[in-house]
Amino acid sequence: MRALFSTLQDTLHSWGYEEYNASPLERTELYEAKTSEEIVNEQTYTFTDRGDRSVTLRPEMTPTMARMVARKRREMPMPLRWFSIPNVFRYERPQKGRLREHYQLNVDLIGIASDEADIEIITIASELLKAFGVEESDFVIRVNSRPLLTAICSYAKLSDKNARDYIRLLDKKSKMSDDDFKTALSAISDNNPLSIIEDVDENKSPEVFREKQALQNTIDTLSTRGVGNVVFDPTITRGFDYYTGIVFEIFDTDKSNARSIFGGGRFDKLVALFGGDDIPAVGFGMGDVTLTDFLETHKKFPNGDKNIPQLYIGTPSESDIPNAQDFAKTLRKEGCRVFVNLTQRSLGDQIKNAVKRGIPTFIAYGADEVTSQTVHMKTLATSKEINLPTSEISERLRSEN
Amino acid sequence: MRALFSTLQDTLHSWGYEEYNASPLERTELYEAKTSEEIVNEQTYTFTDRGDRSVTLRPEMTPTMARMVARKRREMPMPLRWFSIPNVFRYERPQKGRLREHYQLNVDLIGIASDEADIEIITIASELLKAFGVEESDFVIRVNSRPLLTAICSYAKLSDKNARDYIRLLDKKSKMSDDDFKTALSAISDNNPLSIIEDVDENKSPEVFREKQALQNTIDTLSTRGVGNVVFDPTITRGFDYYTGIVFEIFDTDKSNARSIFGGGRFDKLVALFGGDDIPAVGFGMGDVTLTDFLETHKKFPNGDKNIPQLYIGTPSESDIPNAQDFAKTLRKEGCRVFVNLTQRSLGDQIKNAVKRGIPTFIAYGADEVTSQTVHMKTLATSKEINLPTSEISERLRSEN
Repeated sequence: MRALFSTLQDTLHSWGYEEYNASPLERTELYEAKTSEEIVNEQTYTFTDRGDRSVTLRPEMTPTMARMVARKRREMPMPLRWFSIPNVFRYERPQKGRLREHYQLNVDLIGIASDEADIEIITIASELLKAFGVEESDFVIRVNSRPLLTAICSYAKLSDKNARDYIRLLDKKSKMSDDDFKTALSAISDNNPLSIIEDVDENKSPEVFREKQALQNTIDTLSTRGVGNVVFDPTITRGFDYYTGIVFEIFDTDKSNARSIFGGGRFDKLVALFGGDDIPAVGFGMGDVTLTDFLETHKKFPNGDKNIPQLYIGTPSESDIPNAQDFAKTLRKEGCRVFVNLTQRSLGDQIKNAVKRGIPTFIAYGADEVTSQTVHMKTLATSKEINLPTSEISERLRSEN
Repeated sequence: MRALFSTLQDTLHSWGYEEYNASPLERTELYEAKTSEEIVNEQTYTFTDRGDRSVTLRPEMTPTMARMVARKRREMPMPLRWFSIPNVFRYERPQKGRLREHYQLNVDLIGIASDEADIEIITIASELLKAFGVEESDFVIRVNSRPLLTAICSYAKLSDKNARDYIRLLDKKSKMSDDDFKTALSAISDNNPLSIIEDVDENKSPEVFREKQALQNTIDTLSTRGVGNVVFDPTITRGFDYYTGIVFEIFDTDKSNARSIFGGGRFDKLVALFGGDDIPAVGFGMGDVTLTDFLETHKKFPNGDKNIPQLYIGTPSESDIPNAQDFAKTLRKEGCRVFVNLTQRSLGDQIKNAVKRGIPTFIAYGADEVTSQTVHMKTLATSKEINLPTSEISERLRSEN
């Protein structure tokens, strides 16, 4: 993820989003009411601390963010446009007993109830992928809405329990065979709730009709605003129980990587659980592993880290190191990233070392170069060498990298 | 620290240092042999996990780094120039029962035994402060060496236990009155070890003489290389037991903030504790709190975050938001950071909101502006307004921020 951070951060800063941080350790109760049960019971890293309190390494960032917003809501100018790239933790089944850590970008827009916030968040989700050079045809944004799901359940006359089971079942649909899904669905309801959405009738089911229209409006608006790959999908639910409005999930259109890349939605009731009134909120979380898979599938993973050194300065002998460091200092002042050899390796081995590190250019800087103020600059990928006055190196590096 | 991160990262990248990361949770045994006892017993956040193992939230990064290096030493091209900005944790005394988290920059150069590595690390320590605009006269780099301390203890005929007590006592000297220090010192040794260093004699104490000379050479070299504020201080020890060579500590020269800002040293035996042969290593750790205090004392804390939005686009009515977002999109493509109002606040309240956020410029973008393609751009600090064609905004923002 680190290689991906700066692209994500630059895009979010261009939208006026502010980065925040928090400790990875939370009281366990933070997750008990608000996260899906399965996660709290089976997948968190939870333990008792010295003060005899149950604490948990955060499995996700949204509850932490909600707690922070609830505590500081009076001090902060609303709306909040916030993002964070925290590490989050999952504990693997006891037999493995391993702690898995990954990074997850979280983007939230807090304090705006209108569609404009949903549209902004989904647009940003799309822009973040496009910032890496992928095309709109490479992914699809599947949207649904929790009020629409509720309206369908109510029209299908599902009990509260059956409605919850139905939503859980939808969430697992992509991991089930069609037959298994149908069997499980028929155990929940005789009126196939999914079929209701197919020919929705304004008179027979006005609530379903209205919610579907609202969602379709958002899809249409996104399209006129330049996000053309949004489709309605009645099976999208998102795992967490705290969603209250639109939910969305982004999928790779490449068949070989057909799983969800990331998703999010509106959660207007979550902040109030930590004190104060409801605050409207919409956001998403994007994990590093799935993002990396997606970018690699489409050959858009940023190759070449813009932070690695541009130049390796080799030293013919150890006594040349002070001059090499001195010369490096000049180049650094001119904005270059320079790696200086400090070992007694031969120049040949220094070149190998530079190649291993992925540093693109090499010069040797010894007594001759100090005198002549001219170097042989070697491009390691092509083994091409040019003669160059030392005064021209930084400009050359800038133009090449 | 986040406001400080990019300056630190840019400087370290210019020296060819690579950023690494690790999970904040470690097996407790990682710290047992290698960290000062006081820290492990009293100040760590330690607990038993589900697998019945004792685990600890890292109180410092060096043992983690050493473990990583030991595990991957075969795969990685040496030397390693590594840095990280992890969160580290201290647990406050039981009565408070609070977990304190802070960020700490760690910089290490691994695989080079020569003075050149010590010189590079101390130069970088100095350059990092200078990168914020402080002068060399604002801080002083106090250096000592563990071999010199050992030579002195040996010359003063201290037992192993007394030598350890002496080094611990030095470490606490700055927090003690002179009288208390003298009393404690006389309990350890009749031959005041500190006075030995004052008139060191090559014939009487060749080992002490040699180690002092070596340290003086490093100080002199640093001076010729442009780091002129390094002085010898026989009381510098650093708390951790793993140091084996040079140790240094940087102090503010301002009397009102006279405490240590940060420090480091050479630790050639630490990596081998985790497997394999010794690997020479030198590095330092810099905490966010003391760095912030230092920069604030010298009025060099970076004011104005280069990531905050450059422009607030206000909307006269809610129906103007789509046009405002559309216009913002153009500006973002041109590299600007733009915050768009999504609320129904009055324009006056939107301006107040922009001021609260520290956004420097404001425009209203409504039907008139869409038609005329001209805006009134208001600089909020001065309330000055200018008329500007929309096509000139991004250039204007670039030149001003």
